[in-house]
Amino acid sequence: MERRFEKELQALKERLLVMGGLAETMIHKSVKALVDRDEALIQSVLAHEEEMDLLCIEIDDRCFTLLALQQPMASDLRFLVAGIKINSDLERIGDQAVSIVLRAQSLITQPEVKPLIDIPRMAQLAQEMVRKSLDAFVRRDPELARSVIGADDEVDNLRDQVFRELLTYMMADPGTIPRALNLILISRNLERIADHATNIAEDVIYIARGEDVRERGDKELKKGLRLPLPRTTT
Amino acid sequence: MERRFEKELQALKERLLVMGGLAETMIHKSVKALVDRDEALIQSVLAHEEEMDLLCIEIDDRCFTLLALQQPMASDLRFLVAGIKINSDLERIGDQAVSIVLRAQSLITQPEVKPLIDIPRMAQLAQEMVRKSLDAFVRRDPELARSVIGADDEVDNLRDQVFRELLTYMMADPGTIPRALNLILISRNLERIADHATNIAEDVIYIARGEDVRERGDKELKKGLRLPLPRTTT
Repeated sequence: MERRFEKELQALKERLLVMGGLAETMIHKSVKALVDRDEALIQSVLAHEEEMDLLCIEIDDRCFTLLALQQPMASDLRFLVAGIKINSDLERIGDQAVSIVLRAQSLITQPEVKPLIDIPRMAQLAQEMVRKSLDAFVRRDPELARSVIGADDEVDNLRDQVFRELLTYMMADPGTIPRALNLILISRNLERIADHATNIAEDVIYIARGEDVRERGDKELKKGLRLPLPRTTT
Repeated sequence: MERRFEKELQALKERLLVMGGLAETMIHKSVKALVDRDEALIQSVLAHEEEMDLLCIEIDDRCFTLLALQQPMASDLRFLVAGIKINSDLERIGDQAVSIVLRAQSLITQPEVKPLIDIPRMAQLAQEMVRKSLDAFVRRDPELARSVIGADDEVDNLRDQVFRELLTYMMADPGTIPRALNLILISRNLERIADHATNIAEDVIYIARGEDVRERGDKELKKGLRLPLPRTTT
């Protein structure tokens, strides 16, 4: 029984990694579709969404079966509940990639506002955050998870930079406003993807330490210690 | 043992309702702070955030204790896992309210772009969605949950209306762009609150039916049946 449980747990980890890989692919393709103005890539992201929905349900079922049929130890219990939460974060990352391609669909039929530099950089960072947070989960590595939480600040800085720059374009030429707004909203989609990766990383730290990193972060911050802020409120 | 479990489950429900009430208060106060240009209300929302963080940790602990110490039946298992997810949705609703007051803080020092009508209406709808989704959870009432999912469309329509209207203001007078952008982002915060309420409602239907409403929704949609779309990708 014990060995069977371990095997099922291993299979669950592998499926979560497949789901994470799919989320990464969707992030990458969605912004590449925008930059390369590639309608085929847009369709490909939309097709991935169905794949992801099925995977999400399969993983949820695996988690519930393991929770219900076995009597997992406290640490496995936390791992399984985290699995359910992470699964749902990954699915929402897919939703954000879909939102990006829907905006891209309108943008690629119109002239460029400006060459895109910060948005692809945000996408790359967000993708790395997703990969690292999933690695941290399967390896139960809180240090790696902490590095993901730290990277979120960089994404937020890029988001602010995108905002400021596009604001300048809009003020100078109101004709760019609708396109610039879509680009700002794409940067917000990427920010939300980074937030989901941060949630995953917080869950990893939570499993590892058996305590809530969010609360500890607030307390230590109040004591004036430097700590990457795990909460994002933008 | 059985009666003790029932009692603990009841206590958990009550705490989740307190958390839901707090989330509602934060939504209401955040938009009222904006409309009434009331700095004291802004501070009050910020204070609520700490309260919410503590409550969130307490509820998480209750759920894990019940999962670990008892051997809940399948339906209680789903209820407890849903409790953990709902708790985290409510916390993120609080984060969105904080994000709204941070934007309001800058807006209330500047002249109004226009009298606000749709944003308070969005806030009211979002607040109702939160209340109904929580009611549906504690009563295990999938029909009430379905009505929440239906209401999300109305919020999305208002979001589009806010967007279109503010776009007109920005194009006509570029001086309004920074303020109008903040209002657009506040409407997105409210949209995300409605999305979290939708997530809660989906979890309620999931517990009740033991099947995934999201997937079923997609399939029925493909068959051309009219069904409120449970997924939002904007």
